[in-house]
Amino acid sequence: MAEIRRDLVKSNWVGIVADMALKPQEFPINKWGIETTSNNIICPFCEGHEAFTPPEIMAIRHDDSEANAAGWSIRVIPNKFSVLHPDGILEKKHNGIYSNYNGVGRQEVIIETPEHGVDLHEFDEARIVMIINILKQRYNVLSQDDRIKYIQIYKNRGIFAGASQEHSHSQVIGLPFVPQENSGVIDYYHKTGSCLLCDIIRQEKLVRERLVYETEHFLLICPYASRFPYETWVIPKKHCEHFGAISEAEINELAMLCKKYTSAMIDCLQNPAYNYMLNSAPVNVPYIPGFHWYLEITPRLLVTAGVDIATGIYMNPVAPELAASLLRDKLLGQD
Amino acid sequence: MAEIRRDLVKSNWVGIVADMALKPQEFPINKWGIETTSNNIICPFCEGHEAFTPPEIMAIRHDDSEANAAGWSIRVIPNKFSVLHPDGILEKKHNGIYSNYNGVGRQEVIIETPEHGVDLHEFDEARIVMIINILKQRYNVLSQDDRIKYIQIYKNRGIFAGASQEHSHSQVIGLPFVPQENSGVIDYYHKTGSCLLCDIIRQEKLVRERLVYETEHFLLICPYASRFPYETWVIPKKHCEHFGAISEAEINELAMLCKKYTSAMIDCLQNPAYNYMLNSAPVNVPYIPGFHWYLEITPRLLVTAGVDIATGIYMNPVAPELAASLLRDKLLGQD
Repeated sequence: MAEIRRDLVKSNWVGIVADMALKPQEFPINKWGIETTSNNIICPFCEGHEAFTPPEIMAIRHDDSEANAAGWSIRVIPNKFSVLHPDGILEKKHNGIYSNYNGVGRQEVIIETPEHGVDLHEFDEARIVMIINILKQRYNVLSQDDRIKYIQIYKNRGIFAGASQEHSHSQVIGLPFVPQENSGVIDYYHKTGSCLLCDIIRQEKLVRERLVYETEHFLLICPYASRFPYETWVIPKKHCEHFGAISEAEINELAMLCKKYTSAMIDCLQNPAYNYMLNSAPVNVPYIPGFHWYLEITPRLLVTAGVDIATGIYMNPVAPELAASLLRDKLLGQD
Repeated sequence: MAEIRRDLVKSNWVGIVADMALKPQEFPINKWGIETTSNNIICPFCEGHEAFTPPEIMAIRHDDSEANAAGWSIRVIPNKFSVLHPDGILEKKHNGIYSNYNGVGRQEVIIETPEHGVDLHEFDEARIVMIINILKQRYNVLSQDDRIKYIQIYKNRGIFAGASQEHSHSQVIGLPFVPQENSGVIDYYHKTGSCLLCDIIRQEKLVRERLVYETEHFLLICPYASRFPYETWVIPKKHCEHFGAISEAEINELAMLCKKYTSAMIDCLQNPAYNYMLNSAPVNVPYIPGFHWYLEITPRLLVTAGVDIATGIYMNPVAPELAASLLRDKLLGQD
């Protein structure tokens, strides 16, 4: 059983991925430390271990190699432990006061390299360009499935960012409904007639205290209401709703920025766990104005505490102005 | 500077606790492990170390002991690193498209024992009764301050639950506005004319598959849309909006349940980090129907990943029905 259940208290949804059914002793963490057994386990993402994953959806391969065998450079597979399944139609079921959806959708894993232990900031730019191109391609393929209403691209690096595999990878999830999480951009558009992200770019360029870096196509800032210490957004300057419409010039520049920014962050913040989260507009729904795609990068230096979970109000001990100043100095120092 | 900033994308608030201003090397975690230096540091919560905390707000003390010295059993102090300050009036400031509140409110720490390394489940019931009585008292004192609109009681145990101190403690926070997080109970009341928690009690007692334990005054369940593996709610059976109105009989039973449930959880789940979060009705606002106080207990066996943060949709790998079955067997086995 895997289903998406309505959380009546939070007015939200929860994915119950019960196929995974971790036993208590299989969780990676306990009260004070990590008991990692990863050294004893075969990494399913390594080259030569293709049989440990579901069959690949696509891969960049040497011409003479066969699907689901060695000889690849980047590999896309279904997430084995997903709440979302690619078959069937969306059905809502009611059970007394409760309700749920069956998990129709997609969850794909992009294995970014055949090599274990080589991380994003260590890739050459050509590989990062390939990864972004594949993310764009998967975004556009998933958006052709009209059961999918929202596509979330993200990356978990390190156990403190929720990664269950060390081997460098990203994920693409196609949800059968639009999450409410970023609905502020819609409200802002209704109130002002403007794009929130375009207005943020305008104000941050004027004020400059939260500005981290600027290139031809992108602005890097620590957002005004950063939920995480050193949280950074990479915002395309050109108003564009869908990540799937990213241009070749933007991809090349974004690849350069991913490598440069991630290296700086790893160096400044002592090799933290981090998430990449790519926010974009809903798909396959009547047009909703206000969206503008952007990449959110969150180092994970603290664990969410009871007060944050209970109230939804994150407590951040680092002012974004201080964070931006540190990261800006580091990035400019590299130029 | 400490302020509460408006997050325009998430339509929410973020506390910027910049007085704390952790330097990058002071964060406790890095990519794969914990670098705890707590053994080298004097614990400010231990008896004899009272000078390391702000002056106490109240304490349960031996008759011959002096304030802010040894000789106490439970001690309440202001949180030194809070975004909230007890003086002044609430002011909203605008800065271009952004806005913030100054941090008016209270954040108190209840040091639950003078002894380091003794945890809640190891306390005798008499101590837990005293702690709950103090939480009730602080709730009622804070609710007399009409600048405070919402009181959140919570406990972080272990670094994976966001605790920055090992020494057993709880916290009470008085916010100057009502967080939207639990607004589903208001929507439910408007739609049905019923209390959501009362209706949950009714359905769970009928279905029984998520029921963990029942006493005269409380029902323990794993909620239908559990966000965390083994998440458990302790719901008072009598409809009651405010925790501050808990009866003596309920306090005694809740103390017994806290000890019994926490011991079972620690045993079943291999000594996990966990949060206690006490949800209650807003204070000092015009009456809003739909609230019913309850205690949420969340073992923290996984770290929130990119997909959960980005979409707000938590992915939980343990069905609440399985979780309830394991915890129920353990609790009934102890009877």
